[in-house]
Amino acid sequence: MDVTLHDLCGADPTRRFSPYCWRVRMALAHKGIAHETIPWRFTQKATIADAGTDKVPVLRHGGRTVHESWRILEYLEDNWPGAPTLFGGEGGRALARFVNTWADAVMIPGLVRLIISDIPQHLAPEDAEYFIRTREERFGKSLAELTADRERAAKAFRQGLHPLRMVLRERPWLSGPTAGAADYIAFGPLQWARCVSAFPVLAADDPVHAWRGRLLDAFGGLARSVPAEDLT
Amino acid sequence: MDVTLHDLCGADPTRRFSPYCWRVRMALAHKGIAHETIPWRFTQKATIADAGTDKVPVLRHGGRTVHESWRILEYLEDNWPGAPTLFGGEGGRALARFVNTWADAVMIPGLVRLIISDIPQHLAPEDAEYFIRTREERFGKSLAELTADRERAAKAFRQGLHPLRMVLRERPWLSGPTAGAADYIAFGPLQWARCVSAFPVLAADDPVHAWRGRLLDAFGGLARSVPAEDLT
Repeated sequence: MDVTLHDLCGADPTRRFSPYCWRVRMALAHKGIAHETIPWRFTQKATIADAGTDKVPVLRHGGRTVHESWRILEYLEDNWPGAPTLFGGEGGRALARFVNTWADAVMIPGLVRLIISDIPQHLAPEDAEYFIRTREERFGKSLAELTADRERAAKAFRQGLHPLRMVLRERPWLSGPTAGAADYIAFGPLQWARCVSAFPVLAADDPVHAWRGRLLDAFGGLARSVPAEDLT
Repeated sequence: MDVTLHDLCGADPTRRFSPYCWRVRMALAHKGIAHETIPWRFTQKATIADAGTDKVPVLRHGGRTVHESWRILEYLEDNWPGAPTLFGGEGGRALARFVNTWADAVMIPGLVRLIISDIPQHLAPEDAEYFIRTREERFGKSLAELTADRERAAKAFRQGLHPLRMVLRERPWLSGPTAGAADYIAFGPLQWARCVSAFPVLAADDPVHAWRGRLLDAFGGLARSVPAEDLT
């Protein structure tokens, strides 16, 4: 197969939960690019070292490697120009980058406070040790402390989604009349959460919840097909 | 003149401070559309009642009226297709709407806590009475109470700009290699603040501050040319 993607997994190799890998998987499906995913665990640094990174997603295409989800989305758009567009033109590409910085600055830190302590139970023992040690170093707190006040943190997280919600009240997709890169970029963090935690990060009557459902159903239910904890 | 814009002003008719009107004024300049602005005060409802609204901006073009800044931006893009694009294509138009909801949900409420009590001093007496009464009803607090903790609120506001800042660390404009609608949408609230308040809503070394400066300089210094309080 010409295209392969190293895709984060848990102890169960079918539990794929990286927010960044999901951005790429949805984009690959959007473009209809045949590919193979290779399950990758946190401590398997050696298998991607040649790509100049120690994190997934890593895409291999022929002899080339590309890492970092945003750069991979741009690579897919530029190298499969005849397939359905991810960005809808240069203006859309530019502002999809803003959606990316927004999701990384608002959605992911918000979700950390809701679900991070639920992650280690899904990991192989050596990965769990690595994950707990590196995240506690990064945040300066135990994972349990990070999510200790998650009922209140959920209110703040949902409030922070208001810009996305306001758009989704007007139309079905963030990217316009059809889904695109911006949708997959904002979806990745929510898919990360639902794959590892049953905690309801979204209210059931939130337009963001309905939009998440449409993305779970997209591409033959691709994102719904993996092991998950939040099945709403 | 074929195009006119009702533009919010203070007691001094040259003090133009509406965040929403500034979005439109920058877009008109971007497209090079000859137009006249008509100073409009909060209590001059009668002069725009025919447009079906009691708020500016109201754009008049030939016999047509358009109100609400986002709708006006779309109107300008659609009716001056040969002039420089505001959106850079349909993908850019779709995501500029997200920038608009983000600016309205994050920037404007954040700035209210920093500068709203500085507004009445710039208004004609009947407008000041109207402004204070309607805003205190809306927020359930006095204007002085709203900005009482503005040193701390400034930290939260600046933190909330992080998605914008991350993009501006990579390139000069939010919209890509050249400025566009998304830049003007996010600039409007900052121009609102600087026209009425000397309070430093941005740190001097913030990339957002430098970007604001580039927008103040754009179009021959259009946005710098009006009376303002924050001259940094």
